[in-house]
Amino acid sequence: MEQQTLAAVILAAGQGTRMKSSRPKVLHPLAGRPMVAFPLGLAEELGCDPTVLVVGHGADRVREAMAERNCLFVEQRQQLGTGHALLCAGEALAGFSGDLLLLCGDVPLLRTATLRGLLDLHRRQQALVTVLTAHMEDPTGYGRIVRDAEGSVQAIVEEKDASEAQRALHEVNTGIYLFRAPFVFEVLAGLGCDNAQGEYYLTDVVAAAVDAGGRVCALQLTDAEEAMGVNDRRQLAVAEAVLRRRINEALMRSGVGMTDPQATYVDAGVEIGPDTQLLPGTVIRGATRIGAGCTIGPHVVIDNCRIADNVRIKAGSVLAESEVGPETDIGPMAHLRPGTVLAGENKIGNFVETKKAQIGRGSKASHLTYLGDCELGTGVNIGCGTITCNYDGVNKYRTVIEDDVFVGSDTQFIAPVTIGRNSLIGAGSTITKDVPPDSLALSRAEQKVIEGWRLRRRKKRKNG
Amino acid sequence: MEQQTLAAVILAAGQGTRMKSSRPKVLHPLAGRPMVAFPLGLAEELGCDPTVLVVGHGADRVREAMAERNCLFVEQRQQLGTGHALLCAGEALAGFSGDLLLLCGDVPLLRTATLRGLLDLHRRQQALVTVLTAHMEDPTGYGRIVRDAEGSVQAIVEEKDASEAQRALHEVNTGIYLFRAPFVFEVLAGLGCDNAQGEYYLTDVVAAAVDAGGRVCALQLTDAEEAMGVNDRRQLAVAEAVLRRRINEALMRSGVGMTDPQATYVDAGVEIGPDTQLLPGTVIRGATRIGAGCTIGPHVVIDNCRIADNVRIKAGSVLAESEVGPETDIGPMAHLRPGTVLAGENKIGNFVETKKAQIGRGSKASHLTYLGDCELGTGVNIGCGTITCNYDGVNKYRTVIEDDVFVGSDTQFIAPVTIGRNSLIGAGSTITKDVPPDSLALSRAEQKVIEGWRLRRRKKRKNG
Amino acid sequence: MEQQTLAAVILAAGQGTRMKSSRPKVLHPLAGRPMVAFPLGLAEELGCDPTVLVVGHGADRVREAMAERNCLFVEQRQQLGTGHALLCAGEALAGFSGDLLLLCGDVPLLRTATLRGLLDLHRRQQALVTVLTAHMEDPTGYGRIVRDAEGSVQAIVEEKDASEAQRALHEVNTGIYLFRAPFVFEVLAGLGCDNAQGEYYLTDVVAAAVDAGGRVCALQLTDAEEAMGVNDRRQLAVAEAVLRRRINEALMRSGVGMTDPQATYVDAGVEIGPDTQLLPGTVIRGATRIGAGCTIGPHVVIDNCRIADNVRIKAGSVLAESEVGPETDIGPMAHLRPGTVLAGENKIGNFVETKKAQIGRGSKASHLTYLGDCELGTGVNIGCGTITCNYDGVNKYRTVIEDDVFVGSDTQFIAPVTIGRNSLIGAGSTITKDVPPDSLALSRAEQKVIEGWRLRRRKKRKNG
Repeated sequence: MEQQTLAAVILAAGQGTRMKSSRPKVLHPLAGRPMVAFPLGLAEELGCDPTVLVVGHGADRVREAMAERNCLFVEQRQQLGTGHALLCAGEALAGFSGDLLLLCGDVPLLRTATLRGLLDLHRRQQALVTVLTAHMEDPTGYGRIVRDAEGSVQAIVEEKDASEAQRALHEVNTGIYLFRAPFVFEVLAGLGCDNAQGEYYLTDVVAAAVDAGGRVCALQLTDAEEAMGVNDRRQLAVAEAVLRRRINEALMRSGVGMTDPQATYVDAGVEIGPDTQLLPGTVIRGATRIGAGCTIGPHVVIDNCRIADNVRIKAGSVLAESEVGPETDIGPMAHLRPGTVLAGENKIGNFVETKKAQIGRGSKASHLTYLGDCELGTGVNIGCGTITCNYDGVNKYRTVIEDDVFVGSDTQFIAPVTIGRNSLIGAGSTITKDVPPDSLALSRAEQKVIEGWRLRRRKKRKNG
Repeated sequence: MEQQTLAAVILAAGQGTRMKSSRPKVLHPLAGRPMVAFPLGLAEELGCDPTVLVVGHGADRVREAMAERNCLFVEQRQQLGTGHALLCAGEALAGFSGDLLLLCGDVPLLRTATLRGLLDLHRRQQALVTVLTAHMEDPTGYGRIVRDAEGSVQAIVEEKDASEAQRALHEVNTGIYLFRAPFVFEVLAGLGCDNAQGEYYLTDVVAAAVDAGGRVCALQLTDAEEAMGVNDRRQLAVAEAVLRRRINEALMRSGVGMTDPQATYVDAGVEIGPDTQLLPGTVIRGATRIGAGCTIGPHVVIDNCRIADNVRIKAGSVLAESEVGPETDIGPMAHLRPGTVLAGENKIGNFVETKKAQIGRGSKASHLTYLGDCELGTGVNIGCGTITCNYDGVNKYRTVIEDDVFVGSDTQFIAPVTIGRNSLIGAGSTITKDVPPDSLALSRAEQKVIEGWRLRRRKKRKNG
Repeated sequence: MEQQTLAAVILAAGQGTRMKSSRPKVLHPLAGRPMVAFPLGLAEELGCDPTVLVVGHGADRVREAMAERNCLFVEQRQQLGTGHALLCAGEALAGFSGDLLLLCGDVPLLRTATLRGLLDLHRRQQALVTVLTAHMEDPTGYGRIVRDAEGSVQAIVEEKDASEAQRALHEVNTGIYLFRAPFVFEVLAGLGCDNAQGEYYLTDVVAAAVDAGGRVCALQLTDAEEAMGVNDRRQLAVAEAVLRRRINEALMRSGVGMTDPQATYVDAGVEIGPDTQLLPGTVIRGATRIGAGCTIGPHVVIDNCRIADNVRIKAGSVLAESEVGPETDIGPMAHLRPGTVLAGENKIGNFVETKKAQIGRGSKASHLTYLGDCELGTGVNIGCGTITCNYDGVNKYRTVIEDDVFVGSDTQFIAPVTIGRNSLIGAGSTITKDVPPDSLALSRAEQKVIEGWRLRRRKKRKNG
């Protein structure tokens, strides 16, 4: 079954001038991933081996960004057309005799099922070339697909070379192809680049296949949107909206509720359990996993977190690289920074920031607090205005607060410091030394009252 | 005029499997209300008496959620079709001889005016049955309405039973009917359930009416959207968007400004005065009432509040169960929790939280403050970092701050405590005892300075 | 070239009853500007001289709002039709013999290029009148354009006067005209107002021009949206959405990234550099200028700020009238109030408020802090919970913190106060007096610990 092997070449060398960006075009993010990760993902899902990424503009940055992916990199140093780009991959594919899937780094919306259909057709028909096509209401600017009466492709005609009858055709070339690998490299190697621009085009391969009497097939997309190329920021935003719709519809089918899917921003790859409701303006990014029965939003931002079941994350809260246990209430306007681990049944209230904070079950910090580099036991109550002073300008130190401690408001813990279980810290204290269990600790100047002071001062001001 | 009486039966027994939810389908919220509240509201507006809710899946939860509504509940224990569901309501309607409006708990977008039109037609034509229909570009899956030359309904044909000519019809059954009550129950009682699925269908009632020589009418919706059923989360989001558009257009007609109505989320039933501007991302829920001339948003969340005229609520603020007097400035990023009552001309600034706080006219808390379980007079100035320490881990206590008190920054009030009028609290104080009027109160350790300390420490560190 | 001169008259006298507003219709804002500023801007770009604004309802408020613009104001005291409104401008244009552009204060979406095309046609054809027209799928309610075989306009027929054939026309009058000035004023002066409503209409001028054997031209808009009039809040929101789309598309073409352009709100006139990414819900208003390579959002609000390159402004932050230097990190949930100037490489973290604060390069305030009326040197580290106590209830005072000072958490500076360079302030201090350089300053009560206190109290409570 050697002929069943499949390789992929992904064209990712283009500059993307119209993006007006210092970033290589194929690295612009979509749904949280670089654009080129989408064709790479398709090649992986189809089991392509090898996958060759043809890089050019910003080659080093693309290579670096995709270093972890299972693909080879070849560099196209000159921009001599799509045929030339593919030819650059020839050496990497030397001896490969299977089928070759050609994808574009800036065509991110293709679906795996579509490519499986393309592959089925290609193999069933024993085609030399199979091209993916689309119906366009306005085909201006695209290469037209010319078919014979049986539906076989006779030619792909560029607009400038097209007759009037050909221009009236609405089936256009998407630039996505399947080739029999040995055939395409043989043709490309033989092609001069003696056309007007001195470039090699893949459409010439189609012509060569027809000339050779081989079969050229075409599969027309049901949904032309899949073939959309991204050449500028507006198209990038359109592609983002398409992915948003797809991601959100899949989540809704699985039982996730969304008050306004158009204003709900979930990265590809995020997992969310059923009966979790996302309110408008919510942004969920990275490798986040969220349980069932949660309520999140509006206007909440979550990056790379694990959220358990039945968690409520209220308006405007921001969470990053944190773990949140079940039955926890967060926000509104709370900020969980990296390294926060909440065991469950916690409350992290408004204007509270946590960072590298391990917080035991049932512990609460309800208001205006900073908990950094600390460990809290279970059942701890952190008063309003509590601050872990973890930084002396040089190093960071830890605060440990054991089970059932009650911390009065406006307390500062000068780390390193440990508060023994079941102790109570009086409001307004600066705690510099360890506190044994079951104790009361406080640092407080006595309250003084000067009666009539304000009356006298007012009089003085008036007279003065 | 006995025949003018109208009863309603609302079918709310379905499971809603495709919602993928532990919640009964008809309790999923739309514009802040359970879906079934929409047909219930229609029945109320039309003066239906009685209204019978046929419950089944999650019957107890539906009953509980609608307990306050003026309706009867009957339970459909087996799912034997729509006819059977209606039959379940028969006993509750024994002896009722008027017209019967059949509504669906998962069809929330119908308008009262539409049903009035249906009722007019039904009575004018002295029909036995009148069905609400819709024109569908793609009628696949729906029962087709077969009319005779005069436009009278001859039959409703399910797709599977339809001839080719019938399948080409675009007028479909919405499942909303008016029946003459005695007729429909008589037919249903007589129907076997000897059809393929062993179920009773309402379409059989139509057939029976035609057989009996009675008149069957149909009213086609102008706007097919009204008949949309909600079977999954995507449809729920679509229905939410339709209601959002309706609510926002009604508010705009009455003089409320919206920068982006698509991103403005106002529950059904919220009242807002003219010349109030809602900025994008604003969410207003529950029984909220807002005056005229306010500016609210962006990204503000308001639940069940009363807001007077000329109030500005700035970016990211969150308010719940609070009252806000006129000419008040709130936020950005303020949090008014339940029981906050602002008399007017107040300022509640950034990172300020209030809860069960009665605040007199003209009083201000501009920054980083927690005011809980407290009462403030008029003209009070609360400094930055003020905290009412209302909780000792067991009980909550009140703080009272009388008129014209000036509270310096970083003050903690250990409740219960009362600050007499016109007193001044020095910054950084922990106030544990009552302060008489016109006094200065403070608790403060003296400032010590160790000159050169930091130079010496740096040297030590270098050497150390 | 005297005939090449161009004047403009802008009709801005209408009441706008359907806005349901106390604000004159033409002052309702669009993309951050009063609606009437759009036709005024067009007149300026076309070099109209003079531009006459015909005011009426709310004349004083319109005059005041547009006082800075280079235009004359004339008042239309009675509402006697569009012809009368123009006639009111006659005196201000006495002796003007060029062309006259008539614009409407409530038609804000016209493009300059469209009017240039209109002017070209008018002059090339030596027309007496040239009218801007639009194709409407549903022309109901609009005046129809009746052309002869050559395309010259024969008449503009109001719907009520139109024959059936004329009603079938889809080209309608937009109310935007070019006139030869002497001609139009002569006609208007001669017109009785003996028609049904006793009003003067500009369509009568067209009839007069045809009668006089002059040429009347018409230019049909490519995009009918440009002619949209704003008569109610819904149309205002539609116009806002059109402007939003135009502004955002122009920004994207210039290299600004937007995750969701539909939920990105940028005022007309804002400047943003390439490779700056705007996340959803971001609102940028006024005369804001933002550099390149920034990341802003989601849910950030910026008013009238200057932001340098490579600045990150994170979720929910609010900035007004501030300057932000390069490589600065702000937020999430930070609030920069007017007069904040950050030199660069700063960090202003969560729940931090600044106001009239000059902050040197590299200085940081990461958490829960208020910096008002202050000046910070370079390399200052402001601890969590720091407060500048700038207000004594009567006056505001300044705090000066010199280079490399380290401020411990929960410090209050009682202004006026100066902290010498390289000093350290101990956590929990109330600083009332100046601190010399290189010093340690603190005010702190000693920590006391009462062991077993909490056990005893618990026992007492149980027994008590």
